[in-house]
Amino acid sequence: MEIEIKARIERQEDVVQKLRSLGAKYIKTEKQEDVYFNHPSRDFSTTDEALRIRSAGGIFSLTYKGPKIDKITKTREEYETEVSDIDETEKILEKLGFKKAGSVVKTRVCYRLGVFSVMLDSVEGLGDFVEIEKESGFYKEEELIKLLAKLGIDERAVERRSYLELLKSR
Amino acid sequence: MEIEIKARIERQEDVVQKLRSLGAKYIKTEKQEDVYFNHPSRDFSTTDEALRIRSAGGIFSLTYKGPKIDKITKTREEYETEVSDIDETEKILEKLGFKKAGSVVKTRVCYRLGVFSVMLDSVEGLGDFVEIEKESGFYKEEELIKLLAKLGIDERAVERRSYLELLKSR
Repeated sequence: MEIEIKARIERQEDVVQKLRSLGAKYIKTEKQEDVYFNHPSRDFSTTDEALRIRSAGGIFSLTYKGPKIDKITKTREEYETEVSDIDETEKILEKLGFKKAGSVVKTRVCYRLGVFSVMLDSVEGLGDFVEIEKESGFYKEEELIKLLAKLGIDERAVERRSYLELLKSR
Repeated sequence: MEIEIKARIERQEDVVQKLRSLGAKYIKTEKQEDVYFNHPSRDFSTTDEALRIRSAGGIFSLTYKGPKIDKITKTREEYETEVSDIDETEKILEKLGFKKAGSVVKTRVCYRLGVFSVMLDSVEGLGDFVEIEKESGFYKEEELIKLLAKLGIDERAVERRSYLELLKSR
């Protein structure tokens, strides 16, 4: 299970400052290039699933995300493996009938704050967002929203749509 | 493209002796555990495709094999990537609607003979086979059959069905 909330932000610097004052630890900055695929016999935009190949810092991964399970956050089932060869992985998916649905390119700045990962995303063509993630453990929607508030972000800025959906709806 | 021929053999020792006399180089022996999957919306046993997760010597791989393209050999398109996490990879496939079609467990002894890989397989529940493979380059069906003859194996022992098919047809 991936417990996650996302919100649009105005000024990344403001959020960074709040993070620092809360004692968050800087982890890394990386460029992430994601390619999303649609299923050969079901429409992921209807079923609210996603299949993604990510290239980030020379590491490639294949990820499946299940439908979101609540109303506000982006919490959902997630399965992921690293893959050694991105071209072969893409070819396997294509041969199985998966079609490229689009791609998302972003720069992600990662912080750690207690049990939370806080990611500041600058998404090409979309702008800036923050994602707060908790990888496992007892799940409470409210704790994600509370942390959002601590970072000076209003609940109304919460965005449940994926970057891909946002890019497609422009 | 994977250029490959397979044949049933009676005594593995006889083939090993022939290989040695031809100057083949011993590479390795490993146990391979393969799980095959069927597609959510097409029947691989009809389309002559295969999707496999292999576990061998602590390395996991995901492989797609296209339909065989000739009458005697098992030559076909093949795409493969290593994956870091076999359980997550299986979960991803299951969530995408792929169903386990069966599994094949074998001990494979690998030799190298010029441009050819020669593999001696002892397949659980099936017996002994030899596979001759050429990974790339100009493709000639005859050169595989010729090598088979040099190893003392008759063309009538050639088997185009996969181990999975053979296990299922018992």
